[in-house]
Amino acid sequence: MIQLIPVAGLGEIRATSGLEDQLADALTATGISDGDVLVITSKIVSKAEGRFVELGTIIPGARALDLAGNTGKDPRLVELILRESASVVRAAGPVLITRHRLGLVMANAGIDASNLGPAGDDRVLLLPEDPDRSARHLAKALSSRLGCELGIVLSDSFGRPWRQGVVNVAIGVSGVPPLDDRRGDHDRDGRPLRVTQIAYGDLLASAAGLVMGEADEGIPVVVVRGAKVSDTTQGAASLIRPLKEDLFQ
Amino acid sequence: MIQLIPVAGLGEIRATSGLEDQLADALTATGISDGDVLVITSKIVSKAEGRFVELGTIIPGARALDLAGNTGKDPRLVELILRESASVVRAAGPVLITRHRLGLVMANAGIDASNLGPAGDDRVLLLPEDPDRSARHLAKALSSRLGCELGIVLSDSFGRPWRQGVVNVAIGVSGVPPLDDRRGDHDRDGRPLRVTQIAYGDLLASAAGLVMGEADEGIPVVVVRGAKVSDTTQGAASLIRPLKEDLFQ
Repeated sequence: MIQLIPVAGLGEIRATSGLEDQLADALTATGISDGDVLVITSKIVSKAEGRFVELGTIIPGARALDLAGNTGKDPRLVELILRESASVVRAAGPVLITRHRLGLVMANAGIDASNLGPAGDDRVLLLPEDPDRSARHLAKALSSRLGCELGIVLSDSFGRPWRQGVVNVAIGVSGVPPLDDRRGDHDRDGRPLRVTQIAYGDLLASAAGLVMGEADEGIPVVVVRGAKVSDTTQGAASLIRPLKEDLFQ
Repeated sequence: MIQLIPVAGLGEIRATSGLEDQLADALTATGISDGDVLVITSKIVSKAEGRFVELGTIIPGARALDLAGNTGKDPRLVELILRESASVVRAAGPVLITRHRLGLVMANAGIDASNLGPAGDDRVLLLPEDPDRSARHLAKALSSRLGCELGIVLSDSFGRPWRQGVVNVAIGVSGVPPLDDRRGDHDRDGRPLRVTQIAYGDLLASAAGLVMGEADEGIPVVVVRGAKVSDTTQGAASLIRPLKEDLFQ
């Protein structure tokens, strides 16, 4: 059996606060064991890392102005999206999908413009600079504070080209297998398995999404108990399909 | 807290067996309550519905022969994929992605060619004819056998264009909200929520995927306890993005 346990009592994360200390306190109250996996919305890691940008400091270039006209977005936000991205994948109607410099194909380069402070605040929040590094760092910091080894998944919500609604995916991982690689395995009748790689990190993120709901409303951390952990050094970057295999550029 | 509980002891499902009776027995042994959600791999529903096709009965047409040459697939299988599909979305290397007549964009029209009997058997298995109808039918049948109201999700594993590995999605649902629609809601500071629709049915399927692993190996049914249920009549068809909004045809 696997359990998905909400972590309550985590205060508002600010750039200057100690995410590690706050997490350690909240997890001690929740109860935590060796082999538990923490799924953490990347938003609070971004906040802890101070990944805010004041839109007022951004001067949009010609391409941003052009795309802003087409999408109806704030030109300064579009400029920031372009700066965070390696390429534009689709711009249509209000939708702007880019390949983030991390390789992630997602809307608006993952920039979060909601719930960042008092209404009228024009700060937006970028993704963590290196989510796999952030996950490894958190794993180490929490291990030393809590005395147990935890898997870490940083999650974000992604749209999908052919399906409605968003799902949570893993953009950073430590201590869990991002891909459960079954290549070479066989089924009960000796045939090669049809499905050979399971996106295990994404399944963890989506399972936690059942508990998180809309992360803006207050369950930013979920303990997954009973899942697979691993001492792999593979990060969530291995969940990104290489550009040369992309049939939908 | 949400629990993901494997359902053990479900025998091999054959076209002639009673899936409902077998499920009711296995669920009685597992323990089941009002409001539990069953996530069931669509494969066993297909088997129960007798959705087998003998490849030997299929004569490939010109287009199937052409695509088979390009993809290296059995031309009879390609013919069957085309018959199950409204259009071909991408054919490249060994990959054949189509829009299934149900609207699902997926590899090989969801046709399963693995683990269907003794090696040498050339039977393949189509998706259930109408997965939402199958889900509603199972909900009703299990309710009358078990005396409690259950949510039902039929799941299948899908690849994604920009991410490695497969995840489980919902292709049929009954009694659970396929989309958790938050349009019109606001965050704590009064701003409209950035994420407005959560693909709740897909999150349920993916959560169960953590327990199922590769469905060919034997955990085809998972109880999700503590999730949202609903008396919505919306099916998993509402998780399919309408063709007119498809930016990646």
